[in-house]
Amino acid sequence: MLELLTSETPNGWKAAIMLEELGVPYKVTPISLTDRVQKEDWYVALNPNGRIPTLVDHDAGGFAVFESGAILIYLAEKFGRFLPADVQGRSTVIQWVMWQMAGLGPMMGQATVFNRYFEEKLPAVIDRYVRESRRLLEVMDARLATRDYLAGEYSIADIACFPWVRGADWAQIPIDGLDHVKRWRDTIAARPAVQRGLNVPEPPKPEEMEAKTVKQGRNILA
Amino acid sequence: MLELLTSETPNGWKAAIMLEELGVPYKVTPISLTDRVQKEDWYVALNPNGRIPTLVDHDAGGFAVFESGAILIYLAEKFGRFLPADVQGRSTVIQWVMWQMAGLGPMMGQATVFNRYFEEKLPAVIDRYVRESRRLLEVMDARLATRDYLAGEYSIADIACFPWVRGADWAQIPIDGLDHVKRWRDTIAARPAVQRGLNVPEPPKPEEMEAKTVKQGRNILA
Repeated sequence: MLELLTSETPNGWKAAIMLEELGVPYKVTPISLTDRVQKEDWYVALNPNGRIPTLVDHDAGGFAVFESGAILIYLAEKFGRFLPADVQGRSTVIQWVMWQMAGLGPMMGQATVFNRYFEEKLPAVIDRYVRESRRLLEVMDARLATRDYLAGEYSIADIACFPWVRGADWAQIPIDGLDHVKRWRDTIAARPAVQRGLNVPEPPKPEEMEAKTVKQGRNILA
Repeated sequence: MLELLTSETPNGWKAAIMLEELGVPYKVTPISLTDRVQKEDWYVALNPNGRIPTLVDHDAGGFAVFESGAILIYLAEKFGRFLPADVQGRSTVIQWVMWQMAGLGPMMGQATVFNRYFEEKLPAVIDRYVRESRRLLEVMDARLATRDYLAGEYSIADIACFPWVRGADWAQIPIDGLDHVKRWRDTIAARPAVQRGLNVPEPPKPEEMEAKTVKQGRNILA
């Protein structure tokens, strides 16, 4: 059995969407970021970075995988899906997964922090991260102008990027004019497995959402 | 023949060190960040993100690889070195490469920007990135307390992290007390291939170094 320790964030949804796309059985262990469970000793023993998500493969001696990008590659290789077998197709997918992990995710993450969570409003800092996030989304838009998905067929590159792109409004990044990105986003959002993955773990009730997420954000800063 | 398009930055050095460790012939094409060559059309055709490094494999139809982490995996798989073949050993290395790409690199990068390049001095922002970078280095220190390298034998995980750790002073991140990290850094710094890689491309003369790097930093912001 696979176990996903996760929370309702873009990095968590990547792993949940992948598991739903694979259609394999897995157990969900919700990790409360509000209560800082990700910093507890038992959790850090699985994930030395103290972040979510973590995948534990109980069919492989309890092998634990941290970093969402590494979880996607591990699952893609375990089940032989969403990552091509040929050298160049495979590398192209990994390149775009890396681009998401090193660029789109961190920069949209910083934009979210300074737009929503940071005590001071710092226009120059907000501008830096909004502009860099927009630049990255423009790179994606140019890429998607000539193809349906980021790297050949639908792959872990798309799964990695989708939850971040979907959260552009929350991060307060304008996506006007990025028609290829919007088309791609809407195509992926329509996949039943993606819709199921976005409900893992069970989302908070709408009336609790903003307060809970802001508290999480402040805890992440602490 | 392999071609590395690169500049003297931590992400560039990762790829150069890997090529030197492999001991394979390669051509270096220096990319001037000062002159924003990485944004020129011919370069963006190879690297859609407009950043360095880029690897071009002329023995594979001119296949271009962007994102330093993806370059490391591509080369490791092409030559069968510095990435274990067994599932768990391989995943563990990829996990730490991802951790560097998504965490250590971006956060030390932001610390460098706000410590050295940003017009305004913003103590709360500097504090955020210095603390997060220090936290990440502490994660590494805990990991290295019980092993020589991040993931089994010397691997692309170590090659990915080394140029960033080496630059802790430049980024103004304190590493006092991180004795395991220092021991690991010094062990890797002593490798002849690493020393050669750090000279790719040929470094600017010492008297030009700070001015050039500050100008690069400001250009990266622009």
